Amino acid sequence: MIETPYLLFLGDAPDQLAAKVAIGIRDWRPENAVGQYRMDGCKADLGLKDLSLAEAKAAGAKTLVIGVANRGGVISAAWKEVLIEALEMGYDLASGLHNLLRDEGDLVAAAQTHGGTLHDVRVPTDGYPIANGKKRSGKRCLAVGTDCSAGKMYTAMSMDAEMRKRGMKSTFRATGQTGILITGQGVPLDAVVADFMAGSVEYLTPDNDADHWDHIEGQGSLFHISYSGVTMALVHGGQPDALILCHEPTRTHMRGLPEYALPTLERLRDTALPLARVANPDCQVAGVSINTQHLSEDEARAYIAKVEADMGIPATDPYRFGAGKLVEGLAAL
Amino acid sequence: MIETPYLLFLGDAPDQLAAKVAIGIRDWRPENAVGQYRMDGCKADLGLKDLSLAEAKAAGAKTLVIGVANRGGVISAAWKEVLIEALEMGYDLASGLHNLLRDEGDLVAAAQTHGGTLHDVRVPTDGYPIANGKKRSGKRCLAVGTDCSAGKMYTAMSMDAEMRKRGMKSTFRATGQTGILITGQGVPLDAVVADFMAGSVEYLTPDNDADHWDHIEGQGSLFHISYSGVTMALVHGGQPDALILCHEPTRTHMRGLPEYALPTLERLRDTALPLARVANPDCQVAGVSINTQHLSEDEARAYIAKVEADMGIPATDPYRFGAGKLVEGLAAL
Repeated sequence: MIETPYLLFLGDAPDQLAAKVAIGIRDWRPENAVGQYRMDGCKADLGLKDLSLAEAKAAGAKTLVIGVANRGGVISAAWKEVLIEALEMGYDLASGLHNLLRDEGDLVAAAQTHGGTLHDVRVPTDGYPIANGKKRSGKRCLAVGTDCSAGKMYTAMSMDAEMRKRGMKSTFRATGQTGILITGQGVPLDAVVADFMAGSVEYLTPDNDADHWDHIEGQGSLFHISYSGVTMALVHGGQPDALILCHEPTRTHMRGLPEYALPTLERLRDTALPLARVANPDCQVAGVSINTQHLSEDEARAYIAKVEADMGIPATDPYRFGAGKLVEGLAAL
Repeated sequence: MIETPYLLFLGDAPDQLAAKVAIGIRDWRPENAVGQYRMDGCKADLGLKDLSLAEAKAAGAKTLVIGVANRGGVISAAWKEVLIEALEMGYDLASGLHNLLRDEGDLVAAAQTHGGTLHDVRVPTDGYPIANGKKRSGKRCLAVGTDCSAGKMYTAMSMDAEMRKRGMKSTFRATGQTGILITGQGVPLDAVVADFMAGSVEYLTPDNDADHWDHIEGQGSLFHISYSGVTMALVHGGQPDALILCHEPTRTHMRGLPEYALPTLERLRDTALPLARVANPDCQVAGVSINTQHLSEDEARAYIAKVEADMGIPATDPYRFGAGKLVEGLAAL
């Protein structure tokens, strides 16, 4: 568990895209960010207050979150100066970088001296059990995609936000680096050892109130041959009561696999649902989430209307048009 | 790669069952074992020559293989004496125990002093790539089960042995501890980090002659919620041309999951084949392997005949009745 609130470190980000993690925190947990910290030459701007380490500390910040992808995979000397100063001032550090904070001797030394914690969210920290498949109380919703990066995390985040807005009991359950940094906790599923994948998802989504929904962040796709095993562990370990099908309609092939075509939404439904019912015989497909970022608004509305007509279940782009329809789809189950 | 031939260390095995790994080596790679080493009180006997370390060394043994499950998970002081003596004499050690050889300071020291290698086959040793899904040359056969421990390894071993007896090009590809110790190489798939599972299977089954068959050792089951992700990585990373369906007909529930019923063979076929065709559109189900160890011979033959009639594909118990039918099933594709 990473202590909040955060100061978001943007470093010398070469562009806005490099600040993806920080943008996610700003969009989904604005209450977790007291401000942003930018170095000379930083080309990203979240529109948050620019704060010094001392100002952010005074505003209550507990953790400096590296909310930016670095260049060349190195934690640069220029960054180091700020990170060490933060540790000296009593901050914890959190990072989803491939290069681990814990592999940097000077950061480890400063953390030890000043009692700070280094959170490398790519590395599992807990010992996970083997999945036991026992029925858990409470409800779970899992987003599954025709492809990777189809909008599963944003779908789950949107539904969680909409439910909480309506006063419903809801928790977003992060299974990837960005989700973990946004919410401060979760399981970095793609780094879990094979035998414990499904168990780690059970661990992440324990017994809960009967009317509580977990929105589990999906990973990969049952049709993406590189990562389908990770997806399968979510479908079985997550024991979902509801699936949301996610699709990005302009994709011409599976991400990173030019020889592989995307399945249709119907094929995803007909593949995912019987597999999910192995773990939860009552599972149903509650709706479809279309990632329309590359469509005009007219195109998006037409595409969504066609999906709804074809499949007979609620469809929308929850990020663009709100997640109300999908939340109502869950309630209708 | 573990150097062969082996001397099989049975230690003070409490019974024959504890020597499962050694039995596998004797049954499937007898040419890899010069003999057995038993300590006082050993209750297992492979029917191989009892050799001292010196006698086995003279017979060419390169590696002392711990072919036995130990009691309480500890590498006992009594074992240590033998293991260290073996290292002093120039042996390598190989083990599939949960407790790692490399975590025992005295073994590490002896191995360093005498230039021996400690092989802990539960631990992945190679850096595996992310799966790329590119079509590979050569043929691949994967055994998939209605449950775990349904006979997938013995099926693959039997088919490999039968093919080689017929002069066909064939390799058994180990994905578990026992298989790795039997053949001296492989991928300990259940210990691979999630993102690299499918890639490790691609790595294990590279391009080959057009008429060469890899027999990939299956793991878990698509219907076993604890391990289905591992199975999925085999179905996609293995890119199989042929599936063999494996079933143990006396099982009353999924192994370790009393609340879960086994699927039928038809359901396994209808689930596994469409998933396999994502990676290899030409994949077919070539046959059914029935583990009849708990049936009389008459019962076994009747059960197999019924499966063949119901499913219209070759069925047999390859360990009991020979793998000829399944090999012919592959040739018929």
